[in-house]
Amino acid sequence: MSSISNSIKDFRMEVNDRFVEIANACSPEFYHDTVEPVYSVDIGRTGDDWTVVKREKADTVLSAPLKEGDSVCFDFGNHQVGYVTIGLGFKGSPPDAPAFIKIKFGELPCEIGEKKEDYHGSIGAGWIQEEFFHIDEIPSVLSLNRRYAFRYMEICVLNVSPKYALTIESITCETVTSADYTQVEPLQGVSERVRKLDSVSLKTMAECMQDVFEDGPKRDRRLWIGDLRLQALTNYETFHNNTLAKRCLYLFAGLKQNEGRVGACLFTKPNLQVDDTALFDYSLFFVSCLKDYYEHTGDRETLVDLWDTAYRQIELSAMRLDAFGLVQDSDDWWCFLDWADGLNKQAGAQAILIYSIKQAIVLAEELKDDARAGQLKQLLERVTKAAIDSLWDKEKGLFVSGANRQVSWASQIWMIIAQVFDCETNIRILENCTADKDAIPMVTPYMYHHYVEALICNGMKDAALEAIDGYWGQMIDDGADCYFELYDPQNKYVSPYGSRIINSYCHAWSGTPAYFIRKYGLK
Amino acid sequence: MSSISNSIKDFRMEVNDRFVEIANACSPEFYHDTVEPVYSVDIGRTGDDWTVVKREKADTVLSAPLKEGDSVCFDFGNHQVGYVTIGLGFKGSPPDAPAFIKIKFGELPCEIGEKKEDYHGSIGAGWIQEEFFHIDEIPSVLSLNRRYAFRYMEICVLNVSPKYALTIESITCETVTSADYTQVEPLQGVSERVRKLDSVSLKTMAECMQDVFEDGPKRDRRLWIGDLRLQALTNYETFHNNTLAKRCLYLFAGLKQNEGRVGACLFTKPNLQVDDTALFDYSLFFVSCLKDYYEHTGDRETLVDLWDTAYRQIELSAMRLDAFGLVQDSDDWWCFLDWADGLNKQAGAQAILIYSIKQAIVLAEELKDDARAGQLKQLLERVTKAAIDSLWDKEKGLFVSGANRQVSWASQIWMIIAQVFDCETNIRILENCTADKDAIPMVTPYMYHHYVEALICNGMKDAALEAIDGYWGQMIDDGADCYFELYDPQNKYVSPYGSRIINSYCHAWSGTPAYFIRKYGLK
Repeated sequence: MSSISNSIKDFRMEVNDRFVEIANACSPEFYHDTVEPVYSVDIGRTGDDWTVVKREKADTVLSAPLKEGDSVCFDFGNHQVGYVTIGLGFKGSPPDAPAFIKIKFGELPCEIGEKKEDYHGSIGAGWIQEEFFHIDEIPSVLSLNRRYAFRYMEICVLNVSPKYALTIESITCETVTSADYTQVEPLQGVSERVRKLDSVSLKTMAECMQDVFEDGPKRDRRLWIGDLRLQALTNYETFHNNTLAKRCLYLFAGLKQNEGRVGACLFTKPNLQVDDTALFDYSLFFVSCLKDYYEHTGDRETLVDLWDTAYRQIELSAMRLDAFGLVQDSDDWWCFLDWADGLNKQAGAQAILIYSIKQAIVLAEELKDDARAGQLKQLLERVTKAAIDSLWDKEKGLFVSGANRQVSWASQIWMIIAQVFDCETNIRILENCTADKDAIPMVTPYMYHHYVEALICNGMKDAALEAIDGYWGQMIDDGADCYFELYDPQNKYVSPYGSRIINSYCHAWSGTPAYFIRKYGLK
Repeated sequence: MSSISNSIKDFRMEVNDRFVEIANACSPEFYHDTVEPVYSVDIGRTGDDWTVVKREKADTVLSAPLKEGDSVCFDFGNHQVGYVTIGLGFKGSPPDAPAFIKIKFGELPCEIGEKKEDYHGSIGAGWIQEEFFHIDEIPSVLSLNRRYAFRYMEICVLNVSPKYALTIESITCETVTSADYTQVEPLQGVSERVRKLDSVSLKTMAECMQDVFEDGPKRDRRLWIGDLRLQALTNYETFHNNTLAKRCLYLFAGLKQNEGRVGACLFTKPNLQVDDTALFDYSLFFVSCLKDYYEHTGDRETLVDLWDTAYRQIELSAMRLDAFGLVQDSDDWWCFLDWADGLNKQAGAQAILIYSIKQAIVLAEELKDDARAGQLKQLLERVTKAAIDSLWDKEKGLFVSGANRQVSWASQIWMIIAQVFDCETNIRILENCTADKDAIPMVTPYMYHHYVEALICNGMKDAALEAIDGYWGQMIDDGADCYFELYDPQNKYVSPYGSRIINSYCHAWSGTPAYFIRKYGLK
């Protein structure tokens, strides 16, 4: 996720010190590995894409003299997240002027191939992983302070003097993750394809598991609650780092926005800070995250601590309802759902509210909070009725959204997940939506995740596996080492941000195949 | 100085460990100050030059919001050498993408005004003081690792996100020098002009006094023996850091080139390393440096240690003599003298050999090394005779150089300093050279220094002060905070390197007015 929104008005942060303390006490242990590049590669344009057009062993270019204008590109063989160290030497006379080098990092070859100067997209170009360094002392070791997410790393020698050539004597990356692979159970009796789908999912998850569950190690490197929800679900089936999930819950509850609203995302550096972006669906997902956490851990203390925060999100959402219990639509960036162009959010938001109220009721009952359970049940009845009265188009057999009664996959999928209707109707909705060629499509892996979840809700496990294979599997066939933030098999070079070089190619919300495979025993 | 030469053949370094140990034991103490910018300025093109076109108090731009494309330029009020720390903040939403900034440092406004991309000169563009930084965490403190030489500092915000603006909350420079101002005697009874000429000289010296006597704190930041000779002379009259002079002598003697030759320059980082550049005049200057050091310190132990090295330079130079005792000319970069285009070096080299032999004789006699004293005297006779026989044009009353019998200021000046003829003839030579409009001119402050020295040799103190005022004084009138590496009052934007932005504007070999003023009591 990346916000391109307005900020909420008169934003301020409400800090719960005790929650923050608990969150800090849950800071994770990190696991490291030292990796070296496997290949040196040439990256070129072939058709619509940038690809590796030549590949040789990495050590063939180590110690090779690099004059002004020369460059080398290394391929680390797989996606890496970590800290890079480069040993630099020289050939010729003692270096009599500083070397000046540019280093580009790319999760995919396109990030190496395209020029940063050509990026004019909607989000900060500061995300593009391109650095410039003067090297005053040669030989020396250049240790890059920033963490990078990459497979490809290009070093361009912008300046040396005529008297010497620069050499690269060594390159290593010290990887970092808070995922412990020893906690992952080996898969039994699955196809090679499922094993591959699972392993890329694990890799994606591990790369995003850092000090918090990050949305993407390249971008935004921060805790978004929409990503967190899916990461935590996958984590419970894989790495079992429940403490990290707890940490993230306490951070969101400890760093709230005005009126006790859970923010859409938060920063842990340089200071703990909730962002000023509020999203209707994202705030509600706190309920879902808490319910999932409690379900997988039985940690009642946390449930008791965070219940008020969860309940408050329902209350705040209810303020947006009209007299009939319908979520009021608006034009600004108030609810996310998906990146689809022109997607109306009303029906999806209504569905997510229903879904969240149902989860809140489970928690209220677990806590024997009868008063709130009662209120939630009343509210559920009202919003469900409003959904059917106002958003259900009986003739079409589809949910519609907004003043223009828009049909979208997002609306149908969330209404199915919210189980507004029974299984039989839900299956018919899916059929009807498939038949409606004007339905606003799904565009992100995040939305595809919910599509698969909707299939599974309706007991369609084979269709679910097929969908995973057709989407995430296609990504693998297209060369993904980790699952991409954005992927449209029909339009592979799409970006909502104006350029695909700013896209994240290892993204938490895309990493859920392992969750489906393991939780539902897909083979 | 900056070498643009070929390297010597089969170069290797001959290390004398004991000398290196002594050099290391003489590592200097550093003096620091913390300075802040005085003004924020706009720099613009006015006529042929870049100048400050608007100036306000620095604090008017502190904390001001800087969006993508904005920049601010600070003026520190005087030349600085040191380490910069910048406090960064933000306005708007919590920064949701890294900021990307460019920082340019300039000793003069032209370095801010001109674009690095437009530089295509002969020496490494890595010297241009321009850096790029990603700022992941805001607010934060950015401490720049490299040392800069500058008065002007421009910060350009290349990227932020639309959600926030960057702010500069504070900027400081921790200056560094091994010059101790408390050692400098106040000048008595001098004109304001002489006081100013002296103070800029002191500043230039102090900026170049670092771990060694550097040639320039911007470029090349290293120990060149041609600069050292003039720095040490000025130092003996000002900062009295004799240990630093001793350190430099031991470094040159401890890190020799093939055959015991003293290199033209050497590096102290990352390792002690003599450069592979050898220059006829520069190697001989070791004799001069040692004689000056001994004369000012009486440090006989050092003289005894380094005498062999000094004598060896005369021996090596003598190998270049033809049968008649004449230095053989060649086309490559074998002798420096000055940067003047087309300057033939033969006569200057012959003169410097005569000058050096005379100094070596003084040292040999001091050491009662009669054998060498005798050999040196024989040699002196031979090379002096060769100079007069082959290079003295009786009709012109000028020395000529090379196959084309070129007349240059450099040749005359060095023959005068070498005192080949008596004072009366020398004065006539100066007159004749002035009258010869085709004489190759002087182009560097380094050559102007020797011109002033030649005047003083002939007892022309008034003319010396006039020359200093007309040259270094004019530099001050043109806005110099320190004396420039290169300055031609007739052609102010000249550079032998292809662009004046690569010039050093605080340069050791230009910093000698204080030497003349103090040693010869110029008022």
